[in-house]
Amino acid sequence: MAPQLDAYFKQVDSLAEHFIDRLAKAVAIPSVSAEDERRPDVVRMGYWLADELKSLGADVELRPLGKQPHKEHLDLPPVVVARYGNDKNKRTILVYGHYDVQPALLDDGWATEPFKLTVDDKGRMYGRGSTDDKGPVLGWLNAIEAHKMAGVDFPVNLLCCFEGMEEYGSEGLDDFIKDEAKQYFKDADAVCISDNYWLGTEKPCLTYGLRGCSYYSIEVSGPGQDLHSGVFGGTAHEPMTDLMKIMGGLVGVDGKIAIPGLDKLVAPLTDEEKSLYGDIAFTMDNLYESLGSKTGLFPDKERTLMARWRYPSLSIHGVEGAFSAPGAKTVIPAKVIGKFSIRTVPNMEPEDVDKLVFDYINSEYAKLNSKNTLKVSLQHAGKWWVASPKHWNFTAAGKAVEHVWGVKPDLTREGGSIPVTLTFEQATGKNVLLLPMGSSTDAAHSINEKLDRKNYIEGIKLLGAYLHYVAEEPMKES
Amino acid sequence: MAPQLDAYFKQVDSLAEHFIDRLAKAVAIPSVSAEDERRPDVVRMGYWLADELKSLGADVELRPLGKQPHKEHLDLPPVVVARYGNDKNKRTILVYGHYDVQPALLDDGWATEPFKLTVDDKGRMYGRGSTDDKGPVLGWLNAIEAHKMAGVDFPVNLLCCFEGMEEYGSEGLDDFIKDEAKQYFKDADAVCISDNYWLGTEKPCLTYGLRGCSYYSIEVSGPGQDLHSGVFGGTAHEPMTDLMKIMGGLVGVDGKIAIPGLDKLVAPLTDEEKSLYGDIAFTMDNLYESLGSKTGLFPDKERTLMARWRYPSLSIHGVEGAFSAPGAKTVIPAKVIGKFSIRTVPNMEPEDVDKLVFDYINSEYAKLNSKNTLKVSLQHAGKWWVASPKHWNFTAAGKAVEHVWGVKPDLTREGGSIPVTLTFEQATGKNVLLLPMGSSTDAAHSINEKLDRKNYIEGIKLLGAYLHYVAEEPMKES
Ligand SMILES: [Zn+2]
Ligand SMILES: [Zn+2]
Ligand SMILES: [Zn+2]
Ligand SMILES: [Zn+2]
Repeated sequence: MAPQLDAYFKQVDSLAEHFIDRLAKAVAIPSVSAEDERRPDVVRMGYWLADELKSLGADVELRPLGKQPHKEHLDLPPVVVARYGNDKNKRTILVYGHYDVQPALLDDGWATEPFKLTVDDKGRMYGRGSTDDKGPVLGWLNAIEAHKMAGVDFPVNLLCCFEGMEEYGSEGLDDFIKDEAKQYFKDADAVCISDNYWLGTEKPCLTYGLRGCSYYSIEVSGPGQDLHSGVFGGTAHEPMTDLMKIMGGLVGVDGKIAIPGLDKLVAPLTDEEKSLYGDIAFTMDNLYESLGSKTGLFPDKERTLMARWRYPSLSIHGVEGAFSAPGAKTVIPAKVIGKFSIRTVPNMEPEDVDKLVFDYINSEYAKLNSKNTLKVSLQHAGKWWVASPKHWNFTAAGKAVEHVWGVKPDLTREGGSIPVTLTFEQATGKNVLLLPMGSSTDAAHSINEKLDRKNYIEGIKLLGAYLHYVAEEPMKES
Repeated sequence: MAPQLDAYFKQVDSLAEHFIDRLAKAVAIPSVSAEDERRPDVVRMGYWLADELKSLGADVELRPLGKQPHKEHLDLPPVVVARYGNDKNKRTILVYGHYDVQPALLDDGWATEPFKLTVDDKGRMYGRGSTDDKGPVLGWLNAIEAHKMAGVDFPVNLLCCFEGMEEYGSEGLDDFIKDEAKQYFKDADAVCISDNYWLGTEKPCLTYGLRGCSYYSIEVSGPGQDLHSGVFGGTAHEPMTDLMKIMGGLVGVDGKIAIPGLDKLVAPLTDEEKSLYGDIAFTMDNLYESLGSKTGLFPDKERTLMARWRYPSLSIHGVEGAFSAPGAKTVIPAKVIGKFSIRTVPNMEPEDVDKLVFDYINSEYAKLNSKNTLKVSLQHAGKWWVASPKHWNFTAAGKAVEHVWGVKPDLTREGGSIPVTLTFEQATGKNVLLLPMGSSTDAAHSINEKLDRKNYIEGIKLLGAYLHYVAEEPMKES
């Protein structure tokens, strides 16, 4: 029997402006976890979220995670855990989200103030964290509030786990989840995470796979301090020269990773898997629209989707320690740190990837015969993940999507990593569902990040509907 | 007849603390010409300098240079021109310096506040601009003041030209000098610039040659905005990949420039020139001390000096638009701008260098077959310069050095460029002398820039003594 959701949906619609206002308040707190000086804002965001949950009637705890590794002067922001409902006759769903955001500066090229939610006439709500991940996190709170206001019984017990370090490698969270799996989270029947995106802009999806991410630093150092290129150019080994050679050799312009042996770790493509890509609602125009250009590597959707979901990729992110401002500075930087990451897929074991990366870079560097010093290190790693999309957690979500959006969702994988997904699966032993709210054009991690008003409001309906269908699905797993 | 300088020297010694205090006031004004938001500080520095000159009795004018090219919202800082003395029976010496400085942030790794002059127990005076070029500029003012206080007649008419955009390519100054060569500067008999450094730390030098500098940008763009590497890694051409390949190919680890044809432009080494390098007071330990490491390219002083003075070099300075902060950001930057410069030497014509650079980079980029867009451009160029060290301007300075420091100076060239040197020579038709105040360990353009107290105080004596010897030298040029 399909749940009766009309009263809830109507309530969400009438509270829409209130929910947008709540998102504006969250976006206004610049909770950038990667910037030390923003740490008080991250903490403030955690307390604000806890207060909102309390005022909705949830039991809330702010759990400390101790000092930040390698930055012992900094406390990690607390994990906000909450329980809403404690009825033994209901299923218990554990939801995860993060209240920290990527760095953002108006000078980066934002059209609007990044920490001021700005809604345009097409209902696009611009602001850092709007879609990643403050909109989805507040979606759960809004679902609770709309149920209360509409007088509709909340269909499940809800456990929340909202962290403040996701954009900086979720420092400290793994151990916390492992510890709480048999304590605070012990009666969770399934896990739901809303922290990814639709494949395009029109059709919702449920996501059952993620690539992993191994993030590396290559540090090259030589002189005792930065040098004037006029005085020293031509007489000394320059760290930037060495770094450019190493970074320039990591990956081809065609996306092919140069590190020998890496391709051998990738699970072979079966005919069955190959046949699935044709049906996915995705076009090259979707790609070009979200790229904002036609600079795709492949001409067809199948190879593009495979490149995103089931093959590894290597991206070079930047250089720390070199001249990075506009204008001209004739400096020879004394120590430069190149940053790159590899997106990993089944069956690449992170430790195997590390070994191949270190061996390759060290041997390439040795060939250069430089007097400078190279140090390559893993900054953080999150493993890839694949779940069963036939579990009741997924079938319930599929019915909720059909109810709210009037269409069956695509079953997709994702190119990005959400390492905590795997942690939840391994620690709780339960099925984990990724249920995205935003769309492919939301520009998470970029300038002009946004969440469409429609995705937010219908997304709140979807999260509530999902919980109602979860309450009704038969227990049998496939 | 050697000038009688004792009274002047004694006066300089007794005013030493006052002169250091004057330098502290100048360093406290963060006149960073490369940073738009510091422009008011640059202008403030110009006014402060003008006021100091006026209070010493000079006629001073602040000359506007109009709007900054490509940044029409910014006024260029004024040129401070001054005349001290107008006696037809005296020679007239035109001195140049700059009152702007390189960028500096405590976070870059400075041991002390960069804009607070901090003197340690060894008399090292740390602060941005201490040696480049506020110390030398104030040297001229201090020389005037000490003459007045000691009641010693000033031996020449002094013309000053102090600019505020040197560290950003001396925007607007070339035309100004060309215009004023036959006006404000018309009775200049010779030019003296104190804006370079001793070769080592013990022996003063006079400098008669400079390398030029051509500074280039390589812009690679593709996507419409920065992308998330999880979502797009492996499916799109990444500008950083292309840029790293181009930058990685510019120069060898051994310092050899990869751009074909560039070496053909370099004047061949004659036996006579080759024989000069052995006598210069310079050791490999001098190099290692100023490098702060043993990462030199050549094992011997001769090849090291030749590499610095008479061969071109290529340095890669950094990347604008990529991730440059500490930590991890999984971004695919949409547009990245690589910066590098080539130090040029006789007989490299800048236009020929540009053409070889553009042709090489464009053809290397075409080979990559990328869908991204490349744009390579010249940011600014300053030509190399070589003068006659047998001119009376140099012989006078040589005698002054011997009088103050008790040793004959080395005749040196410099690896760095001071493009204005050539402009003065061409515009006035007069001999230009480079008369350094600071030493090789001063770390101009780096963190912990300093000027030794001894170099500052004896340098003030030297500038005054130079003017006395200039007044006595026979007019005959070699
Ligand atoms: Zn996220
Ligand atoms: Zn994120
Ligand atoms: Zn200078
Ligand atoms: Zn300088």
